[in-house]
Amino acid sequence: MWSTRIVIVLFVFVVSSNFCNGGYTGVYVRNPLPSMDMPLETLPPPSGFNAPEQYDTLYSYELGYGSVTRRFSFKTPPPLGPDVPYTFGVIGDLGQTYDSNQTLEHYVSNPKGQTMLFVGDLSYADHYEFHDNRRWDTWARFVEKSTAYQPWIWTAGNHELDLASEIGENVPFKPYMHRYHVPHKAAESTSPLWYSIKRASAHIIVLSSYSAYGKYTLQYNWLEKEFQKVDRSVTPWLIVLVHSPWYNSNTYHYMEGESMRVMFEPWFVQNKVDIVFAGHVHSYERSERISNIQYNIVNGLSTPVKDPSAPIYITIGDGGNIEGAASNFTEPQPSYSAYREASFGHAILDIKNRTHAYYTWHRNQDSEAVAADSLWIYNRHYFPVEENTTSTMV
Amino acid sequence: MWSTRIVIVLFVFVVSSNFCNGGYTGVYVRNPLPSMDMPLETLPPPSGFNAPEQYDTLYSYELGYGSVTRRFSFKTPPPLGPDVPYTFGVIGDLGQTYDSNQTLEHYVSNPKGQTMLFVGDLSYADHYEFHDNRRWDTWARFVEKSTAYQPWIWTAGNHELDLASEIGENVPFKPYMHRYHVPHKAAESTSPLWYSIKRASAHIIVLSSYSAYGKYTLQYNWLEKEFQKVDRSVTPWLIVLVHSPWYNSNTYHYMEGESMRVMFEPWFVQNKVDIVFAGHVHSYERSERISNIQYNIVNGLSTPVKDPSAPIYITIGDGGNIEGAASNFTEPQPSYSAYREASFGHAILDIKNRTHAYYTWHRNQDSEAVAADSLWIYNRHYFPVEENTTSTMV
Repeated sequence: MWSTRIVIVLFVFVVSSNFCNGGYTGVYVRNPLPSMDMPLETLPPPSGFNAPEQYDTLYSYELGYGSVTRRFSFKTPPPLGPDVPYTFGVIGDLGQTYDSNQTLEHYVSNPKGQTMLFVGDLSYADHYEFHDNRRWDTWARFVEKSTAYQPWIWTAGNHELDLASEIGENVPFKPYMHRYHVPHKAAESTSPLWYSIKRASAHIIVLSSYSAYGKYTLQYNWLEKEFQKVDRSVTPWLIVLVHSPWYNSNTYHYMEGESMRVMFEPWFVQNKVDIVFAGHVHSYERSERISNIQYNIVNGLSTPVKDPSAPIYITIGDGGNIEGAASNFTEPQPSYSAYREASFGHAILDIKNRTHAYYTWHRNQDSEAVAADSLWIYNRHYFPVEENTTSTMV
Repeated sequence: MWSTRIVIVLFVFVVSSNFCNGGYTGVYVRNPLPSMDMPLETLPPPSGFNAPEQYDTLYSYELGYGSVTRRFSFKTPPPLGPDVPYTFGVIGDLGQTYDSNQTLEHYVSNPKGQTMLFVGDLSYADHYEFHDNRRWDTWARFVEKSTAYQPWIWTAGNHELDLASEIGENVPFKPYMHRYHVPHKAAESTSPLWYSIKRASAHIIVLSSYSAYGKYTLQYNWLEKEFQKVDRSVTPWLIVLVHSPWYNSNTYHYMEGESMRVMFEPWFVQNKVDIVFAGHVHSYERSERISNIQYNIVNGLSTPVKDPSAPIYITIGDGGNIEGAASNFTEPQPSYSAYREASFGHAILDIKNRTHAYYTWHRNQDSEAVAADSLWIYNRHYFPVEENTTSTMV
């Protein structure tokens, strides 16, 4: 009985820890993975539980106690470099529904994704009475088939706020921040809600829609400095994750991201962000490269215009959630919207080199090989050429 | 030596506590005030340090120890009611300079103000190395001539953030929140940075420009509920204090309040806020009644328009600060701006009844009787008639 308990505790620990930050935990074994019936040759964890420092190396680990153990493995990332190819998965608003399961199975069955860009709204535990934290446990078990093997880069969504004033819980993000650790200190951030990760040829910035972002605030100050640290000669691809989309033509959550857009969009254009991934809206949408930063209160210039220095905005809150799909789009489709559809799914961003990345969105109702939306994305720093943004239906 | 120390400790305590919340502290004496050479008849503090419950009553109190004591007094507020007259002072960005002293002397020499609406930026301690907290002490002593006798309703400004990453201080608002207590719990707020106070015929809402205000956040949720609690039949006057102005035509801090305006302005118009007082910009400006809430990203409707349901926005960050006056206005003066001038000063809002209030702005360079800007303000609920907003120079 006692050993079973230990297994459970360790299990929760590992699925809760964040593999993307090098905070590896558990029992370490030397590469290559021994066969399952060989005794594991264990190594002590590196001091401070830091990551092993070998790049591009498969590490295996075992969790459990005594005779009840389970084995997993992960591969450390390649060294940084401007032409290092790397493939990211993208999922938002996953939840733990039938649709959630389809999305995750679809993603896992595609062997290409090496790291997940997760744009917020994980377990939807707050949907249950007292924000039943067992839903956090069940969600962690549900996503283990991916999170145990590859890093997920976490973004805080509104369902992570977990405010429950009816039971006196007014501290935002408590279960999320306890369960999902991110390497914010390495990114010189004072909060796990905004941080950055450099991986292969990409610099990924994660922001919080639900924290202060006004001028002089911690997130504002951090982001201002962070943009100065981006070195496109090392990481040509500049990607931002944020939960609430800035350009969304669905009636659901329409203009909710406007307040943050007003604050930060000029920086995104000045720094030539390649792509912004958001969730929140339970449908799929991809924008043209547009910006809306000329407005000065009195000049009336408040319409999104084509801008080669602007990011492509992708809303991919169609992971599965618990509230259903958002199928009411504003009509007519605005010119800033290149593609939109209320289907569940996930995306793959396949970075080839410093200039080209191939991006595909996969609907759950299609077979794995089908890309409902796809696009060659050109790097804004090295190849700022206009993409053919018309959806290429396969 | 020891008794001297005690006096200082008590002194800091009382000037740091907030008289507007009923959190009265010190030694209580019965009304009327005994003559200064009579021994004070002391009462034990009410349980839980709550305010005495008599309205409109002069209370006197003594601070100190042994033979070193000082006496002050304050008057409790009148009962709430739609026609209860009341006079507010308004000061922002006070600091502790020569100009600050002029502003405060000017205000104190005018006996009309009963409660101060202070719109943020108190001591400017963060201007000094290590954010020298002795500047908080000296500021408290400086304003004592008013704060010991009447309530000041506090708003958090950017200089209250007191972030000092160079010494590892990344918790915002620490000295401010320790020194200036507000009755946020009585207003069912989870933070002292946003709260409300009902006084006489006014319902005053205080917001934080430097906390999260996105949808689903604590401040957003609180404000949504707070507007529902406003009862114009009891408190006809709805006044908002916020540090960063939403309508400011000075080049200094131009459009910094835009992100919060985008989030909350529709509520202000729907709820017919009478006046919004802001600071931050070190000059004076008064707006027309305008709103800018028609914009929907694609319609281009992003110009402020006359709106009888909109508040008058008054920027009064001209208390004295430490950085000088902000004299560079955008040209031409936009139509939403009714009056603007880069002079130090304070304002008086003299509420007469449920329909009328007389508002005056007093420059430091003028004598007390002079109002550089003045206006009869008509209540948006009981008398939503257009004011003559042209400045009436005296």
